[in-house]
Amino acid sequence: MNYSAFHKLSYGLYLIATELNGEKAGYIGNTAFQITAEPSKIAISCNKNNYSAQKIIDSKKFSISVLKKEVDTSLIGKFGFMSGADIDKFQGVETITAKTGAPIVVDSSVAWFDCEVIDYADVGSHYLITAEVVDGDKLSDEEPLTYAYYHAKYKMRSPKNAPTYIDKDKLEEEPEPVVYEEVEEEEHKHTVSEDGIYSCNICGYQYDPEEGDPALGIPPGTPFEDLPDDWKCPICNASKDDFTKV
Amino acid sequence: MNYSAFHKLSYGLYLIATELNGEKAGYIGNTAFQITAEPSKIAISCNKNNYSAQKIIDSKKFSISVLKKEVDTSLIGKFGFMSGADIDKFQGVETITAKTGAPIVVDSSVAWFDCEVIDYADVGSHYLITAEVVDGDKLSDEEPLTYAYYHAKYKMRSPKNAPTYIDKDKLEEEPEPVVYEEVEEEEHKHTVSEDGIYSCNICGYQYDPEEGDPALGIPPGTPFEDLPDDWKCPICNASKDDFTKV
Repeated sequence: MNYSAFHKLSYGLYLIATELNGEKAGYIGNTAFQITAEPSKIAISCNKNNYSAQKIIDSKKFSISVLKKEVDTSLIGKFGFMSGADIDKFQGVETITAKTGAPIVVDSSVAWFDCEVIDYADVGSHYLITAEVVDGDKLSDEEPLTYAYYHAKYKMRSPKNAPTYIDKDKLEEEPEPVVYEEVEEEEHKHTVSEDGIYSCNICGYQYDPEEGDPALGIPPGTPFEDLPDDWKCPICNASKDDFTKV
Repeated sequence: MNYSAFHKLSYGLYLIATELNGEKAGYIGNTAFQITAEPSKIAISCNKNNYSAQKIIDSKKFSISVLKKEVDTSLIGKFGFMSGADIDKFQGVETITAKTGAPIVVDSSVAWFDCEVIDYADVGSHYLITAEVVDGDKLSDEEPLTYAYYHAKYKMRSPKNAPTYIDKDKLEEEPEPVVYEEVEEEEHKHTVSEDGIYSCNICGYQYDPEEGDPALGIPPGTPFEDLPDDWKCPICNASKDDFTKV
């Protein structure tokens, strides 16, 4: 078995959200796909360890926000790498309320679906949840974010809870994400020189001094050591102490 | 409900194949996705009307070939728009035999998986089939074909058996596929002028005289009327009689 074959499957990236007894929960997933056209049904694969999983099963509802290509990475950091048990992920995030009562995140999203759970199967580490789509809308003509683009741009691996997580030891080749042509050349120039690159121990994000962190006002050419002490990982909000030199 | 939201979900395109009592069957699908990492499990949504569906259920095995970006379109035509009840889809197609005994199509493919069916759920028009991946390999570093790219390039809608099929009347806007930047500009220039464009009644492929059909030696600038009588649709192999002027 060559596990790198799994890198050839194509996915989008979605923010799945739910609500139970007034408490919201949400996570980032790559497995949301239509399974029937008439009526419209969708399936998702949700790790049982996700704070959202049991809430979706119990509330029988969830929303899917289709993230846009140039997503606000802090949204991915918060919903993809942190637990709702520790922080309020929805603070400062724009949401609307679905017919089912689930919150729908509209920040960084091009479309959404409101889903009523029909059934779920225990498939081991995950629940495979099937749902009827009771409402949906397109928010923008912008291009959706794909898993391939996201991995190529941010050089990250899947978090451990993802169905697509692959143990590094299992790969016959380096788990370097495939860099497709849609990623701008300058975004991965540091694959040539890795001088001064630091990697986040939490989410795998790599800080490249040649790129800096312009979204936070850090200009290109800033060494990791010169970042302010309160600088945080733009993906998962981890502190500087959580970074290791590559 | 705005059905055009469904166009924002991302998929790949796969050739799913199986074998029962020496008889091979296969179809083109866009819903193949990993549902757990350890052990590796995959789910597919397969229309009950597909000739392959019952054979997969009965044989408890199938292969998934991940199609490459610049796929041989006749493979899509044969496996996507014709029935195994009518033709031998595997004639002239290079296959290898999986551990499970399923045929694996390696033409136009960048990776494959060999799958043993664990269970299936009747979700209405489709079976949602879960399977354990018992083997897999990467065949090429080429980019995989995505559903978005395919639709943008060939201006086709989903066949009626696809879980992503949307009735034209349900769309609040024209079901014109979203044209993403990875498609070369010259490939959709006929959206400006539709003079002389003919559409295939079987699969929706549009013949554009400005593009011709270079793969079959038909140069750009050839009107549909001047195509040889034995010219066939490059996607589904339909004859000229099956085309209607747009």
